[in-house]
Amino acid sequence: MTSLEKKDIPISVIRRLTRYYRYLCVLEKSCIDKISSQAFAEHLALTASQVRQDLGYFGGFGHRGYGYEVKMLKEKLEEILGITNLKKCILIGAGNLGTAILSMNYEKLGFDLVGVFDSNPLLKGTINRGHIIISNDELEKFCKYHKPQAAIICTPSSSVEDIAKRLYNLDVKSFLNFSHYDISILLPDAIVESVHLNDSMMILGFLMQ
Amino acid sequence: MTSLEKKDIPISVIRRLTRYYRYLCVLEKSCIDKISSQAFAEHLALTASQVRQDLGYFGGFGHRGYGYEVKMLKEKLEEILGITNLKKCILIGAGNLGTAILSMNYEKLGFDLVGVFDSNPLLKGTINRGHIIISNDELEKFCKYHKPQAAIICTPSSSVEDIAKRLYNLDVKSFLNFSHYDISILLPDAIVESVHLNDSMMILGFLMQ
Repeated sequence: MTSLEKKDIPISVIRRLTRYYRYLCVLEKSCIDKISSQAFAEHLALTASQVRQDLGYFGGFGHRGYGYEVKMLKEKLEEILGITNLKKCILIGAGNLGTAILSMNYEKLGFDLVGVFDSNPLLKGTINRGHIIISNDELEKFCKYHKPQAAIICTPSSSVEDIAKRLYNLDVKSFLNFSHYDISILLPDAIVESVHLNDSMMILGFLMQ
Repeated sequence: MTSLEKKDIPISVIRRLTRYYRYLCVLEKSCIDKISSQAFAEHLALTASQVRQDLGYFGGFGHRGYGYEVKMLKEKLEEILGITNLKKCILIGAGNLGTAILSMNYEKLGFDLVGVFDSNPLLKGTINRGHIIISNDELEKFCKYHKPQAAIICTPSSSVEDIAKRLYNLDVKSFLNFSHYDISILLPDAIVESVHLNDSMMILGFLMQ
């Protein structure tokens, strides 16, 4: 897929692809080898035509009157989502949230975690989930040598501006951002996926009223 | 606002309201007392008409040629998002992710955390961020007495089906869900806001290609 084609795909479609992928993993584990777009849609509270339209962006993959082959579609989505292509990344901030991320199966999501950083001198050199904690002071040296492509930001918001600028200058231009700080305002051409826990809590609060 | 009116507001508008709210908090801290819809929009990478349309769902609040009063709009959004109305909630799963949530300023987001639960017998009775950890076995007794309205689910996916069903039967029908388990499929009329860390990682991976 060319970058022009990729730009034409709405981000909402990509967000649904990840849900399709998760469900396909469940189906595969349950030894189910095919699924109709109708059953697929019902499980995900979508319509069958929505499912067909979303997958149509990438060429379809279904057969009329048969549905989708689970294993084949799962592999196609792995390709589309780039899961099969390991990307070097680092994690900044090895507190509770950072440690929760370290416990995830990030390799299965397409990321090779090559370094874990924290500004707390007491953590420097300690081991967390098999990773040795490196001081933030070493970022420049480390990145010049290892050339990570992405950074997972689990630091307090107050330090994100400094960290993000330094990383950007080191050619780390993709961020998974857990802070409130809006990296894409600071660095408009960076690739940023943000997880705002506060926002999710407020949205739940609104829906509960 | 009646529930009928609330249903007519797209969830995408609510998601933007939380971003407006976050930005208004920053403006207030910086002692800025008014902002034009244009400046507002530029900061959030939206258009001014989008901002006006979103706020129009709730009555507008702006003045032509003047913009928005920061303090007033912030207070209005607090009302709309229900932040001023504290809702009793519990947290299930006091591991690293749960502990990260316990460190958040959840009262400022409209939640009163009345109980923290974990299934690990070694954690029972220990204190985490000022909360005494209660065994999951006590859920029924606790909920009957304290009547929480919402639960923050930070447990492994494998235990969510059981926990969510038990809570639903105890009249806890709103969930902030951090697991991969899809609670809204199990309980279609529950209120569920999900934070899928895996999905965010896959989306970043896709965008990086």
